[in-house]
Amino acid sequence: MTMFGESENEITPLLTAVAGRDLDRDDLEELFARAAWSGLAEPGDRMAGVVVERLGAAAALRALMKPWSVAEFSAVLEPAEQPDVAAALERWMPRLRPSAVVSNLRQAARVGARLLVPSDLHWPVGVDDLGEHAPLALWVRGTDAALDSLSRSIALVGARAATGYGEHVTMEASAGLVDRGYSIVSGAAYGIDGMAHRAALASHGQTIAFLAGGVDRFYPSGHDALLTRIAEVGAVVSELPCGQAPTKWRFLQRNRLIAAASRATVVLEAGWRSGSLNTAGHAATLGRPLGAVPGPVTSAASAGCHRLIRDYTAICVTNPDEMAELSPLEAAPALFADPTASMTSPSQSRSQLPAESGSPSPELVRLFDALSVRSPRAAADIAARAGLSIAVVQSLLGALQLEGEVAERERGWVRVTRA
Amino acid sequence: MTMFGESENEITPLLTAVAGRDLDRDDLEELFARAAWSGLAEPGDRMAGVVVERLGAAAALRALMKPWSVAEFSAVLEPAEQPDVAAALERWMPRLRPSAVVSNLRQAARVGARLLVPSDLHWPVGVDDLGEHAPLALWVRGTDAALDSLSRSIALVGARAATGYGEHVTMEASAGLVDRGYSIVSGAAYGIDGMAHRAALASHGQTIAFLAGGVDRFYPSGHDALLTRIAEVGAVVSELPCGQAPTKWRFLQRNRLIAAASRATVVLEAGWRSGSLNTAGHAATLGRPLGAVPGPVTSAASAGCHRLIRDYTAICVTNPDEMAELSPLEAAPALFADPTASMTSPSQSRSQLPAESGSPSPELVRLFDALSVRSPRAAADIAARAGLSIAVVQSLLGALQLEGEVAERERGWVRVTRA
Repeated sequence: MTMFGESENEITPLLTAVAGRDLDRDDLEELFARAAWSGLAEPGDRMAGVVVERLGAAAALRALMKPWSVAEFSAVLEPAEQPDVAAALERWMPRLRPSAVVSNLRQAARVGARLLVPSDLHWPVGVDDLGEHAPLALWVRGTDAALDSLSRSIALVGARAATGYGEHVTMEASAGLVDRGYSIVSGAAYGIDGMAHRAALASHGQTIAFLAGGVDRFYPSGHDALLTRIAEVGAVVSELPCGQAPTKWRFLQRNRLIAAASRATVVLEAGWRSGSLNTAGHAATLGRPLGAVPGPVTSAASAGCHRLIRDYTAICVTNPDEMAELSPLEAAPALFADPTASMTSPSQSRSQLPAESGSPSPELVRLFDALSVRSPRAAADIAARAGLSIAVVQSLLGALQLEGEVAERERGWVRVTRA
Repeated sequence: MTMFGESENEITPLLTAVAGRDLDRDDLEELFARAAWSGLAEPGDRMAGVVVERLGAAAALRALMKPWSVAEFSAVLEPAEQPDVAAALERWMPRLRPSAVVSNLRQAARVGARLLVPSDLHWPVGVDDLGEHAPLALWVRGTDAALDSLSRSIALVGARAATGYGEHVTMEASAGLVDRGYSIVSGAAYGIDGMAHRAALASHGQTIAFLAGGVDRFYPSGHDALLTRIAEVGAVVSELPCGQAPTKWRFLQRNRLIAAASRATVVLEAGWRSGSLNTAGHAATLGRPLGAVPGPVTSAASAGCHRLIRDYTAICVTNPDEMAELSPLEAAPALFADPTASMTSPSQSRSQLPAESGSPSPELVRLFDALSVRSPRAAADIAARAGLSIAVVQSLLGALQLEGEVAERERGWVRVTRA
């Protein structure tokens, strides 16, 4: 017997291991398919979300493996969506290797990672508010209790380049929120994120780290010991399968999970262009309460927080009590209680944070992520790494070559660094 | 010839001196009457504003001197206002001594102070937005240019207990706003206010200080040299006649003048209960743009600023550009352009700042202002000092005596200090 072309004898024990329970055949197919989709589509791929939702993950994966897949997908799409199918297939096909799914699963089982799908009891329901941009699966190293605590979590985020002031405020915030019954979500980066996790651990609180790469390889490496500890008593979560490296695109998409999985987001210290403002933007777009901690106006490290308060109606929060007030535990979280709310008023009533204002298109971000300065790569390799179609990659490479951003060597394309 | 019972030969040169120009008989009467009213009614006395506006200052003063004054005032009042006339007369009558007006004028002439009335070319029109609470007259030591610059002024206020951070930010703010063409209004207190004036002077800008007592006696005394300099190149302004001491009530009323005379108010550093929040409250009530500068959340000296941003929709401002944006000079000041606006939307669209939340009534504030711990005072003396009727004073003293707040000695009433 085979499943999606792979030996069922090999797959079943792996899937059982990453599920953490016995599975019937439908479960097995669903899990394998979600594991596959989490590697086929880049995080936040709307079309993947649409076809998986409408066909089911397994049927969508089977459709993808057929020569007439365009027709199968188009049958469940609105007329306006159908023109996008071909491009989506071109993005996904270069990555379609069921054997890669098996090796991802093997690696997950090796590090003790679990595969969480939306039907799972411990699935963090907050991420469903992302709608068609919701993750297709989540890879987790950690405890059920930590996952369940996401329903009473606050995201504490900020810049890597933190000051002593920012770290002090973060420590007080994290410990104070733990004391008030919250769990702490962050991104495990250096600076504010790391301090948020550490202070939660020190206060014996729950803490959950969302990563931009696979959970088998902790990033940043300097936080290996911290993330190992979080995986033991809290949870480390990613929507990317094992073996996947973080990229700029994936950091930005990871930020949407941090905002969506938490009841509220607080930016503790952030410069004018800190990546944590992107997380704040996602929180605002989702209608999640957004707080920012002010600091000295003489400190560039607080300029991003002041920008959020001034221009994006973030609430000025100065202590754990005010942070807790953003989403009191006695009340149901605004959007968890009413998923339709994210579609309507909250996002309209707030100034929209430009998640990526003035920055390159998603395709360009992902293309640059997939290019190396030193190792020449073939267009097909770049397409698979970027999750883009070969046609799109070739067209972008042609344009970038004219601008001197990339160059074609004997063995493939490289990114050109400017002097 | 006499005017209000005083010798015209004596009054005319005094009035001419404080007016700074020749006056006809109507002008003389108007000026004398406004000078008198500025000493009869405590700042912000609504009934005084009403009768002076409807009868004219001179006619209102003449009415006050007649035995049938209740009837004369009632004739120009709405039925709902008429019951307040008797109480108002009881407040004003203990102070009605035309000879005191002459000595105030003599003192004003001696220190070179001018008497400004609403018809004056240099009257700051912003204060008219206070409506029936507008000042009846202003005593000024300073230049016409400084008075005229009020139309492009921003009030910079804050706590006396300023930190190095607050003083630094104030210096940058004041100098930066002067560079952008604004003049600087403040209250000449120690700390933030003093720094705002000093930095404006150092930048060769216009600066105007509003005092809570007469302009003949600068307060605080440690700012005597600073205020002398402001009077030389800027302006020192008060609605109280010469010889009058500042009281808590007068500080609170002085704050309304700072807010009303300026296009916008910025609080630079203020603790949770700083008096500068009262100025902010007046600005908000008037619909004037209100800014607050954030600071470290670890500094109690910034807690009031954060409170304004968090709870009262003050705009978070971090540099002179953002302060200037509160009321750009190319645009007409919001309320100067449309005086009716202060009556309607702006005050409704903002959270109302409690100008004096949880604090004693205006009458109690003024009564305590008028009491001494050491010198026993007769009820009539207290009434004249407080600008309250003797009946009100006696009733309040009786109640406070029961609470142990005041005590009656052989020669009068004293305030009791608690251990």
